[in-house]
Amino acid sequence: MPSYELEYPNEPYSTVKRYNTRATYALETIHGIINSCPILHVSFHAPNSPFPVILPMIGKMGSFERPSADDLGDVLDLYLHGYVSSRIMNLTRDSDSDSSSGLPMSIAATHLDGLVLALTPNSHSYNYRSAVLFGHATLVTDPAEKVFAMELITNGVIADRWGHTRTPPNSSEMQSTSILRVSIKTGSAKIRTGMPHDDRSDMVDTELLQRVWTGVVPVYQTLGTPIPGPYNKLQNPPEYIHEYIADTNTDTKENAEKAAATEVEPPKKVRE
Amino acid sequence: MPSYELEYPNEPYSTVKRYNTRATYALETIHGIINSCPILHVSFHAPNSPFPVILPMIGKMGSFERPSADDLGDVLDLYLHGYVSSRIMNLTRDSDSDSSSGLPMSIAATHLDGLVLALTPNSHSYNYRSAVLFGHATLVTDPAEKVFAMELITNGVIADRWGHTRTPPNSSEMQSTSILRVSIKTGSAKIRTGMPHDDRSDMVDTELLQRVWTGVVPVYQTLGTPIPGPYNKLQNPPEYIHEYIADTNTDTKENAEKAAATEVEPPKKVRE
Repeated sequence: MPSYELEYPNEPYSTVKRYNTRATYALETIHGIINSCPILHVSFHAPNSPFPVILPMIGKMGSFERPSADDLGDVLDLYLHGYVSSRIMNLTRDSDSDSSSGLPMSIAATHLDGLVLALTPNSHSYNYRSAVLFGHATLVTDPAEKVFAMELITNGVIADRWGHTRTPPNSSEMQSTSILRVSIKTGSAKIRTGMPHDDRSDMVDTELLQRVWTGVVPVYQTLGTPIPGPYNKLQNPPEYIHEYIADTNTDTKENAEKAAATEVEPPKKVRE
Repeated sequence: MPSYELEYPNEPYSTVKRYNTRATYALETIHGIINSCPILHVSFHAPNSPFPVILPMIGKMGSFERPSADDLGDVLDLYLHGYVSSRIMNLTRDSDSDSSSGLPMSIAATHLDGLVLALTPNSHSYNYRSAVLFGHATLVTDPAEKVFAMELITNGVIADRWGHTRTPPNSSEMQSTSILRVSIKTGSAKIRTGMPHDDRSDMVDTELLQRVWTGVVPVYQTLGTPIPGPYNKLQNPPEYIHEYIADTNTDTKENAEKAAATEVEPPKKVRE
């Protein structure tokens, strides 16, 4: 574990310009946003298309080479798995065979934490935590690394799920599953917390203040009551599932409420 | 309102290949997924960067030219607004001045509806609704269209909010706000519902069936109790906010539970 806080380097494409007081480059913050996000959005160039590809995928950060690097603030790789058309895998294979460093890829994770309701539509905002990573993807071929990534991703969906299922994957599962390792070049995060901020001219309008409710509606993801499937034989979901649901729901709700209560530096326009 | 169901054309870059029984090209379905998604992910090429830009933004679909087109199944434009670095606006302006048709852009919206827990990690899945649109973005310059889009987006955050705030935007707000109109070329959606499906070899393993809980944990976004801001003067949030929160929470929860109960055609591998 590093004894100082690591930060990603500022590249022209990764530097936050607007509302840059909301930006952070700390690995720990960025990796935390990625790892708590159940769906990432992955984007890369597609040959013969004017439009970049954008795909929802599942992914988690970890380090196979240094398994001791379990701290979110360490240098980590991103492992991706999902409903991927073979296109992404073919492109990655092609970029491998070019002996380049892999397929350039941008990955975004965004959490919505609250609706910020101000006096005017223009001062409305969201409380949010958003991270973007930039890196190069290669196909994982080492079976041990593949299993490492599968376990990382499965336990990212529900803590401790891997050990409670039929493992290890059989040879047909190993063959049919593709895992991408994204070596991260840089990244950034942007976070907005706190209450609405309105312009001075509206803040002195007594009629307006008495007419418009201002504040924050917290937003958080909820895990509901488990619904048993057609071939489930267990009378109740086991304790580790109950615990994961209860802990996650407490965390996400508290986080959204805390975000509303944590005042940020007002955006530039208010200070001017 | 069209009397038949409109579908987006299949382009090579927009056609779903894997699990294509989950795909749909119906405008109504795709637009519904986009308009109920509080955060969209927008991707476009950036000159001088190997990585595509990917940004979280707020956006809603509508038609300024045919305001009667309020049906989600109609041909609609996407209006975008968000924490946009000036980069996106400059690129859009540049592509305008090239007299081309605008900046090519891919837009994704994804809803997570449930964690699908199977006997083996490889058969785990999510219930989800995911849509991608491909189109060309231009800056909105007509003030009337700009106000139309601002109202569309504001009421998309909380129904009926626009009419309960200080409007119309003043000239400084009009100048400082940029709105993009994305003219949609095509799009697609992918939806997974229902319970887990496992391979036959695992389904006959009695020890495994008695050990592993299988089923769905519904996932949905919750709007919490409104927290008044520092200059709020109203004792309670007005009825339209309460109603929006209650309706949204009922809808998202019911939708996630309904998704778990709606059986899909089993994925290919099970049928083989």
